[in-house]
Amino acid sequence: MSDGPGAPHGRSSSSALHTDHYELTMLQAALRSGTASRRCVFETFARRLPAGRRYGVVAGTGRLLEAIERFRFGDAEIADLRERGVVDEDTLDFLAGYRFDGDIWGYAEGETYFPYSPVLVVESDFAHGVILETLILSILNHDSAVASAASRMTGAAGTRPCIEMGSRRTHDEAAVAAARAAYVAGFATTSNLEAGRRHGVPTSGTSAHAFTLLHDSEREAFAAQVAAFGPGTTLLVDTYDVTQGVQTAVEVAGTGLGGVRLDSGDLVVQAREVREQLDGLGATDTRIVVTSDLDEHAIAALAAAPVDGYGVGTRVVTGSGHPTASMVYKLVAREDAQGRMMGVAKKSQDKQSVGGRKYALRRRNLNGIAEAEVLGIGEPPQGDDDDRDMLVPLVREGVVLTGEHATLDGARARHEASVAELPRSAHQLSQGEPAIETTFLTDTP
Amino acid sequence: MSDGPGAPHGRSSSSALHTDHYELTMLQAALRSGTASRRCVFETFARRLPAGRRYGVVAGTGRLLEAIERFRFGDAEIADLRERGVVDEDTLDFLAGYRFDGDIWGYAEGETYFPYSPVLVVESDFAHGVILETLILSILNHDSAVASAASRMTGAAGTRPCIEMGSRRTHDEAAVAAARAAYVAGFATTSNLEAGRRHGVPTSGTSAHAFTLLHDSEREAFAAQVAAFGPGTTLLVDTYDVTQGVQTAVEVAGTGLGGVRLDSGDLVVQAREVREQLDGLGATDTRIVVTSDLDEHAIAALAAAPVDGYGVGTRVVTGSGHPTASMVYKLVAREDAQGRMMGVAKKSQDKQSVGGRKYALRRRNLNGIAEAEVLGIGEPPQGDDDDRDMLVPLVREGVVLTGEHATLDGARARHEASVAELPRSAHQLSQGEPAIETTFLTDTP
Repeated sequence: MSDGPGAPHGRSSSSALHTDHYELTMLQAALRSGTASRRCVFETFARRLPAGRRYGVVAGTGRLLEAIERFRFGDAEIADLRERGVVDEDTLDFLAGYRFDGDIWGYAEGETYFPYSPVLVVESDFAHGVILETLILSILNHDSAVASAASRMTGAAGTRPCIEMGSRRTHDEAAVAAARAAYVAGFATTSNLEAGRRHGVPTSGTSAHAFTLLHDSEREAFAAQVAAFGPGTTLLVDTYDVTQGVQTAVEVAGTGLGGVRLDSGDLVVQAREVREQLDGLGATDTRIVVTSDLDEHAIAALAAAPVDGYGVGTRVVTGSGHPTASMVYKLVAREDAQGRMMGVAKKSQDKQSVGGRKYALRRRNLNGIAEAEVLGIGEPPQGDDDDRDMLVPLVREGVVLTGEHATLDGARARHEASVAELPRSAHQLSQGEPAIETTFLTDTP
Repeated sequence: MSDGPGAPHGRSSSSALHTDHYELTMLQAALRSGTASRRCVFETFARRLPAGRRYGVVAGTGRLLEAIERFRFGDAEIADLRERGVVDEDTLDFLAGYRFDGDIWGYAEGETYFPYSPVLVVESDFAHGVILETLILSILNHDSAVASAASRMTGAAGTRPCIEMGSRRTHDEAAVAAARAAYVAGFATTSNLEAGRRHGVPTSGTSAHAFTLLHDSEREAFAAQVAAFGPGTTLLVDTYDVTQGVQTAVEVAGTGLGGVRLDSGDLVVQAREVREQLDGLGATDTRIVVTSDLDEHAIAALAAAPVDGYGVGTRVVTGSGHPTASMVYKLVAREDAQGRMMGVAKKSQDKQSVGGRKYALRRRNLNGIAEAEVLGIGEPPQGDDDDRDMLVPLVREGVVLTGEHATLDGARARHEASVAELPRSAHQLSQGEPAIETTFLTDTP
């Protein structure tokens, strides 16, 4: 199928066209009016959490920084923009030489966030900052939506592992990012092999109903799987009759059978029955994994059932009802004609923004429990050792900062610590207010 | 940030690892048990439409066929699978030589579908078909979810153009696919530049609030934009005060101003006021484009308002509440030990499947209006000229079939025709039953 001229496979190593048309037209007009070089501060934040949620989780930062390094307008991109008449030659010249040269600060990946938390702050001239809008928002909105949902699921699951297996229910590349984001938020493994290769997320999987149906009997299917992977494998026992399936599974694999998987029916009741049956057969160490349309509420409902692991698909990759984190990227301060920085904000009834470059502190009580998200413009209050500075440097003069700080496992550990620091109410799955309040401090001159 | 070993940029031209781990373990076990070479029929279908929807739209077929051509396990993929111990050497040998060699039939891209419509049918041996599951479902589930939502929006918009601008609210690559799917379903343009380059979707865009805020006054911002793009551009008039914004816009651009954009507030009321104001100023041809969190219901509510175009973001790229089409990929028939094909199906209370290779006909009445989706196994009923055969060949013996039939514009035209053929009830936005019933014909021997 041919979708358009000049796009044989349609793949490019550049991320530069993951950009909305209007960013380049604004650039052209600003280059012409002389305002393109004004220093600017762009802030990424969510005005609210999804309805009823207690906290959000920042994810995608690692993907974003890597994508910013690939944000280059090469010959193919320039030729395409020229051919389609998107912008003029002066603007194309600028784009051909474009390298982000500013500073980026942000909440480190894995951190929790709240309404108006400035999760990413870009400081550069207008030209260099404005064209990153779509890339920044696409990555942070998607990955944070998934991580925020995943965090509720791993919280509900407690010490039992969660397995991400939703690739089939989301876009093929989004699936890879979703597996990564779920891992940040505490998922143990993913089914997605590309997430294993690209990001080092542990992968797992055994078999589907198709494998059982391929064979002339369930017994033959189980025997084939055990022959290939040993008795420690997990057998899917609900293709025909669960009780018969469990019986056959233990007959074939022995009492050392690693696990059985249930993918349909009333899981609370079935898990109890299967546990009893397995114990009766002597397979006391055989694990029970359940995988049928689970979300955080279904996981919580299974807390008292003898379940050893949860496979979660659709609901985690689609953010459990909230597939986007609804973050926005706003110009909050800019240089004026005299070279002084000034806060700016749109005036509208339904979309209030607060202008100016902000600081962000996570205020904690004496027990180390978070009490408030403190935001302000200007100098942050000093002397409170329990305040945690949330904005860390991510890019300095165009150079992406690396180090232990910036690894995926670092983000995973940070998520665990950041959630542990929240008050108890954060872990309630019921609809409620954000776990801590966002407070704006105003400068007193 | 380093996410894992051996993944410097993490990008590969192969699509082969967009695959769930269990597909390769099933392959290993089947290669070993000798069942991997059994002829199989895998069917892709949705058990139901999203709650209340009247029809679905198949999209992503073009992307899928292109991805199947890139489904190759190259050195990098094989090395990764070996290093992570996913499968054994025999299986890796098989994968290294893997080329899909079977047949694929499907609903042509842009067609409407209903519960149990077999939108994609894969005929191959088990080994070649089973490992395409995730790739097929990821692409069709995502793109069909977007196209299905987009179709309701373009239906509600009538002859007024819809502009897709949701890239920032979804994964960076999903955004490109969403722009493409929305175009199939009748959207006029997208903001996404990569969708323009890769798929030839027309792109558009002018400016954001940041551009106005960058300048010392709204007037200077408008003047800069008009200087760069001429008076035919669209000016965003709601950064400060809409009435003043419209006044300034016409003063700067003249009565030939192309358009004004409203992005906040009560759009029904504002559109009327702005139209009146523009007409009073003599700018009778200036278009009004609205863009604030629209979905199909908001578009329908604006039908009587003097609006000339709709910009749709979040709701179209997230499927207007249903971000996945929930299609599944099921083994429905396979060769038995004697080489005969037999229908197979999982037995479970909550997930009924119908075994066997199906035909699918869109039955139409004498006026050409669709009456039923007729599915059956075996020979389709003959002699009814008004029955439309829905399954068209897409891949034959591993070769992707091309031609005019398979272009993106072809899919767009097909969507329009397929929707036009549906009964009137299909166009109701209220919750209801599918517009036509799915009927299973049973073979009478």
